[in-house]
Amino acid sequence: MKLWDKDGKMPAEVEAFLSGEDAFLDQKLVPFDCKASIAHAHMLKKIGVLSEKEGAQLVEGLQEIIKLHTEGKFHVKQADEDCHTAIEAYLIQKYGETGKKIHTARSRNDQVLTALRLYEKDAIHQVQALILTLKDCLLQLSKTYGYIEIPGYTHMQKAMPTIVKVWLGSFVSSFEDTLKVFHLADELVDQSPLGTGAGFGIPVFDIDREMTAKAMGFSSVLENPLYAQMSRGKIEATLMHALTQILFDLNKLSTDLLLFSMAEFGYVLLPSEFCTGSSIMPQKKNPDVLELVRASYHVVLGEEMKIKGIISNLMSGYNRDLQLTKGPMMQAIEITLGCLKSLCLLLPKITINEGTCKKAMSGELYATEEAYELVKKYPPIAFVLKPIHELPAAFLRDLAVNHDEELVRLDVL
Amino acid sequence: MKLWDKDGKMPAEVEAFLSGEDAFLDQKLVPFDCKASIAHAHMLKKIGVLSEKEGAQLVEGLQEIIKLHTEGKFHVKQADEDCHTAIEAYLIQKYGETGKKIHTARSRNDQVLTALRLYEKDAIHQVQALILTLKDCLLQLSKTYGYIEIPGYTHMQKAMPTIVKVWLGSFVSSFEDTLKVFHLADELVDQSPLGTGAGFGIPVFDIDREMTAKAMGFSSVLENPLYAQMSRGKIEATLMHALTQILFDLNKLSTDLLLFSMAEFGYVLLPSEFCTGSSIMPQKKNPDVLELVRASYHVVLGEEMKIKGIISNLMSGYNRDLQLTKGPMMQAIEITLGCLKSLCLLLPKITINEGTCKKAMSGELYATEEAYELVKKYPPIAFVLKPIHELPAAFLRDLAVNHDEELVRLDVL
Amino acid sequence: MKLWDKDGKMPAEVEAFLSGEDAFLDQKLVPFDCKASIAHAHMLKKIGVLSEKEGAQLVEGLQEIIKLHTEGKFHVKQADEDCHTAIEAYLIQKYGETGKKIHTARSRNDQVLTALRLYEKDAIHQVQALILTLKDCLLQLSKTYGYIEIPGYTHMQKAMPTIVKVWLGSFVSSFEDTLKVFHLADELVDQSPLGTGAGFGIPVFDIDREMTAKAMGFSSVLENPLYAQMSRGKIEATLMHALTQILFDLNKLSTDLLLFSMAEFGYVLLPSEFCTGSSIMPQKKNPDVLELVRASYHVVLGEEMKIKGIISNLMSGYNRDLQLTKGPMMQAIEITLGCLKSLCLLLPKITINEGTCKKAMSGELYATEEAYELVKKYPPIAFVLKPIHELPAAFLRDLAVNHDEELVRLDVL
Amino acid sequence: MKLWDKDGKMPAEVEAFLSGEDAFLDQKLVPFDCKASIAHAHMLKKIGVLSEKEGAQLVEGLQEIIKLHTEGKFHVKQADEDCHTAIEAYLIQKYGETGKKIHTARSRNDQVLTALRLYEKDAIHQVQALILTLKDCLLQLSKTYGYIEIPGYTHMQKAMPTIVKVWLGSFVSSFEDTLKVFHLADELVDQSPLGTGAGFGIPVFDIDREMTAKAMGFSSVLENPLYAQMSRGKIEATLMHALTQILFDLNKLSTDLLLFSMAEFGYVLLPSEFCTGSSIMPQKKNPDVLELVRASYHVVLGEEMKIKGIISNLMSGYNRDLQLTKGPMMQAIEITLGCLKSLCLLLPKITINEGTCKKAMSGELYATEEAYELVKKYPPIAFVLKPIHELPAAFLRDLAVNHDEELVRLDVL
Repeated sequence: MKLWDKDGKMPAEVEAFLSGEDAFLDQKLVPFDCKASIAHAHMLKKIGVLSEKEGAQLVEGLQEIIKLHTEGKFHVKQADEDCHTAIEAYLIQKYGETGKKIHTARSRNDQVLTALRLYEKDAIHQVQALILTLKDCLLQLSKTYGYIEIPGYTHMQKAMPTIVKVWLGSFVSSFEDTLKVFHLADELVDQSPLGTGAGFGIPVFDIDREMTAKAMGFSSVLENPLYAQMSRGKIEATLMHALTQILFDLNKLSTDLLLFSMAEFGYVLLPSEFCTGSSIMPQKKNPDVLELVRASYHVVLGEEMKIKGIISNLMSGYNRDLQLTKGPMMQAIEITLGCLKSLCLLLPKITINEGTCKKAMSGELYATEEAYELVKKYPPIAFVLKPIHELPAAFLRDLAVNHDEELVRLDVL
Repeated sequence: MKLWDKDGKMPAEVEAFLSGEDAFLDQKLVPFDCKASIAHAHMLKKIGVLSEKEGAQLVEGLQEIIKLHTEGKFHVKQADEDCHTAIEAYLIQKYGETGKKIHTARSRNDQVLTALRLYEKDAIHQVQALILTLKDCLLQLSKTYGYIEIPGYTHMQKAMPTIVKVWLGSFVSSFEDTLKVFHLADELVDQSPLGTGAGFGIPVFDIDREMTAKAMGFSSVLENPLYAQMSRGKIEATLMHALTQILFDLNKLSTDLLLFSMAEFGYVLLPSEFCTGSSIMPQKKNPDVLELVRASYHVVLGEEMKIKGIISNLMSGYNRDLQLTKGPMMQAIEITLGCLKSLCLLLPKITINEGTCKKAMSGELYATEEAYELVKKYPPIAFVLKPIHELPAAFLRDLAVNHDEELVRLDVL
Repeated sequence: MKLWDKDGKMPAEVEAFLSGEDAFLDQKLVPFDCKASIAHAHMLKKIGVLSEKEGAQLVEGLQEIIKLHTEGKFHVKQADEDCHTAIEAYLIQKYGETGKKIHTARSRNDQVLTALRLYEKDAIHQVQALILTLKDCLLQLSKTYGYIEIPGYTHMQKAMPTIVKVWLGSFVSSFEDTLKVFHLADELVDQSPLGTGAGFGIPVFDIDREMTAKAMGFSSVLENPLYAQMSRGKIEATLMHALTQILFDLNKLSTDLLLFSMAEFGYVLLPSEFCTGSSIMPQKKNPDVLELVRASYHVVLGEEMKIKGIISNLMSGYNRDLQLTKGPMMQAIEITLGCLKSLCLLLPKITINEGTCKKAMSGELYATEEAYELVKKYPPIAFVLKPIHELPAAFLRDLAVNHDEELVRLDVL
Repeated sequence: MKLWDKDGKMPAEVEAFLSGEDAFLDQKLVPFDCKASIAHAHMLKKIGVLSEKEGAQLVEGLQEIIKLHTEGKFHVKQADEDCHTAIEAYLIQKYGETGKKIHTARSRNDQVLTALRLYEKDAIHQVQALILTLKDCLLQLSKTYGYIEIPGYTHMQKAMPTIVKVWLGSFVSSFEDTLKVFHLADELVDQSPLGTGAGFGIPVFDIDREMTAKAMGFSSVLENPLYAQMSRGKIEATLMHALTQILFDLNKLSTDLLLFSMAEFGYVLLPSEFCTGSSIMPQKKNPDVLELVRASYHVVLGEEMKIKGIISNLMSGYNRDLQLTKGPMMQAIEITLGCLKSLCLLLPKITINEGTCKKAMSGELYATEEAYELVKKYPPIAFVLKPIHELPAAFLRDLAVNHDEELVRLDVL
């Protein structure tokens, strides 16, 4: 019987609406909820709520579930409502009354939040590792192609010469700043909510929150029980922001690669095994992976907006609205992992076409440099904005200036 | 073999990334793709690309799929990539070479867009019908409770008296405006994209676009083939906006009901079978349905933002980014239908507590009316903002003014 | 003295926070508030609240303000709080007690909303006219360059041949759909809120709402007074959506122009008088106008999100939050007008370079057409996906197939 | 003459569109641009580009501008385009050719970015200080009223007892986490972009970036010049996120205060000098400040979305789009400062009504506690979900259970 089905008469359609995607999403939360419950069981045993035997049974049962889940054999079904009910049902079926005791001195509120934060911690670490891998891919590419000259663009126009190393290096630098954002997200997530109950603590029982926090690997305890509820969605918003930061990096990288691999540029060659064909154009090689990575930025941004919208204008204390922050957060993480993994596979296979790059290094790219040289050579002239006919011929020849223009604009040098 | 798996060497993880949720989402698109394919088959037969027999076979096969789908027996599997491949695979398996011919003179681009637009048309009509039902619920409630006086609030403060009929009537009026937005969305969606190919028309074959449009129930044909691609996401943005308009109405209705059913107000009594219990608070009756409806506004708004973000800064012509507009649109529709259905069930069960409402009609609510009466009675005074001691005693007594305040502010009457 | 300065002791900083940008924004609202007040004065005279003389004075004073405003001589100052106070102050200074009577039987709530809706109606008509002008620019360009062949792109890759007429025509078609969205916005805005008071009607006085609606040029009256408040922000959301629809069109047009005018493409030449120079690169011609138009889509989208966020999770009745919807709406309109005007000036000056376009029409663009021809010529083969060595040599030669690939993918034709 | 007015023929309307709000916004940037230019002048002198005298003159001129600005006497006019041009114009007018030399070895790109980052650093420090002040206000309130019991709510229903100290403490805890986000924003902003030029470094001149960074108070130097451009908008996005985090805290605080100060609750009394009157309701005291603070969250969120949208799908290198990130960032900071300052003034003036709070502590709030006590007292029963008639009478009496319900739900304890 589901937790919230107070009198069994709720219409099935409304029930389905209430459950939403929980059964589907919660499949990923199973090991994290078990991990938290194991810590909780040990603590309940320590403070005497569970006997030694009861504690041992619950821990054993929870470890079994983790094992089954790893083997793909533990499924949260729609009828279970969510993973928490499914896990309890397993314990009750196996250990009877003892199974029910796992929920003593705990609210569904702090239980759910704890499982989510454990999932998030794990996800953050995965994302961080993939960013480091992708950074290595860039450095490796830079080692191979770094000193090839390519045009630097501003306003989508060839502006000044640069090299592949600077171009790829800008992403390396960006990743480094992005990692700082993840570090913060990790720090915020790393506070145990277990023991805050429904936002007002656990009365009567003398629980040991430090003990469970440590057992689950949290660095600290969310002290204020009401803040635990307030943090739901708020801390996730920071995690979402971290995700949109890395996806911004990938959005720009994809945008560059999509442009530079167009036939009109040809600086980059994409690996054909990462391209797809067309249903009516036999000659096409489509860079779908990069297009989807580019678009994923907007998808994750939408998920961020959902969370930032849901949590607004709500009074203190748990509101069911908050449950709808779970899907966006998990969805955003899965998409981010997908983008990072795909690029980690694709990036090492791209090649930079030195010939095409060389051909693209047209003369106008060097105008700034030439102008600066002139500033040194003709100091009294260069800082003035003058009509062409007033300038010394040598200066104009040196600058190879276009005589059709009536002014030479060097005032800003 | 999947359409875009050009050389069979794409890593499985990237393949999974490319497919995304398509298999899952496309389950709902099956009948719409079949409907479009039936129209296409008839047209191919008419223009001589298919023989009578081939045409008949394909139509028969497609009708079979629709029937199987209705019975829950046609499943789009992850390995199928999407519903279009699954449907073709069925036809090929059954009719061999003939099955393949269904894709003649059609691109995957216009095929997908056509199925989506048919799905959208259907969804819009469902939403419109549910809004009308919900409007009836409000009118019914109004018939029962309409003339009960309740406080009208501004700035969350009791302001002036009103009645239930006006309060519920504001939602009825809002629904009427919202329906106009859906009418527009319907009009925009109601243009057939079939025959626009990949955005540049179908060369060589002399297809009859009017014929297929009519057969599918579209009112007109999207003439410019490149606009068909440009409209992908753009027209969906208008549909999303329509969805956020109705969800705004529901957000406000939920907000009011959640507030007015708090013990502190008690104007409204929610049906207990729509409430849920708590895991640690045996006395609680939680209005989860209304909270989820309230939050759903933000979820659908996030989906709208995804689509409006994805379609930006892209060059003309199909970009794979556009595929990621499908999930948000379908998700938003499912959520909207869920909210509307739940409220259509819940609303008829609420009751308005006349006694509590009466008690809430405290004196200050009538101050505006009294002030206006005074304006009529004491015209030369009422328009002036004056220190209290300068005002006639009768005036002050009539207004029952708080003598602690130094000014009477009636200047704005 | 300001309307809301209840006891004169509010700290100046808080006062500034409350006024926000109103003085600045309201400068544009002056004529619309006057127009509404003129209608209101006529009505008050008709129902006997104002004498003939009083009515005539107020109308005269309001017309004076409109005239002064047109001449740039009527300024809403920060100390006035907003335009409504400034206008009343003018009337009071000129006509004494009579000036104050303009606010009889009116609330600041319906007054503000009325002025905003009149401003919006005017803005919508301006935008509609500019869209039509821009459409003419496109048709004119199409007349000059329409039959030049250019590559059609999908996935940012050359896909199939198309012509300038189709490319520009896609924007024409898009404008037509966008105009339908503005038509809806206009219809929703076109309902008079005057007379709804603070959301609960105007007690005591027997006002004539049809009369004022007609005098102001509204097609109908917003009947339910509480809906008038609910519509604030909601109807504006539809207007904002209309603005993001046209800005999406312009975003794509700019994206195309920015790309096609890059030296790497060269299909389009931008007028140099619309380009800007660089402070360190004397050779640069930067397409800033198009970049700003492109970015403006995101700015207006952000304004739309503000409004859609502000109005959420609020109980029925006026909440001061709603005032913050004014800035985003007005800002979005000004930006949209700026983008449209700039493009109306720029677009007629662009040229299409026929030579560069011709050179870009490389062979692979015709592959689809060739493949379709083959489908007709070699019907039994074309529908099969086969290893190359199993296909007839004539077929391969006709398709000029790349022999390095092991498969010919024509199964989908 | 403006920097980007390449040939003097740009239509005035387009010029206005290009300048946008720059003149208005830049008024606040003046001292920061001067500070950066002073550092730059010192460096140019050190590397020999400026003579001692030239360097001294420029520094003197820049300090004059700072002084004039402080006194409200330096104005960036619309005709100046932006503050950078206005400042240079001042130097040129005063020192002739020497004035022009300030732009040597610098691009407008790195100059603008440097001024913005200095402005942001300053803004972050102001916000941090105000958060600490507001935290003190909360602690002070908590000292006065902390042990008053108030209902704790979940699902907007009275749930469990709590105290003012826990309620206010949740905001204190939230502020502490928010400050961590600002600390990160500060760290990211704290990297000097000066010397990165237009994204490709400064050729020819041997500038000393460490020297200028140190002089301006930056902790480090943004090494990769192209990353400097990539960071524009990206780092601002993190700053925006920090702002939406604090505004979320304030949104919830306002929501609580607005609710708890309603007559229906009466827990909190707002200071009347922070309330506003109504134009038609003489009795009203409206909590406008709190409503505007609540709404400001959505406004700043919209600004965040603008920036996160603008920077997407753009190729590497400066794009003019980025300039439109300036307004949203500055606007968001001003709004945040306004909210914080207003609350710092308002909060110390609120009072908690102990009597009303006490009356609100109704019996059902203690049900969880009682249930937990029962769990200890009747262990074999409490974990079972049973029909009421099967439970011992003593148990039911102890729980004071409602006999109308058929089940006692204690299975989850």
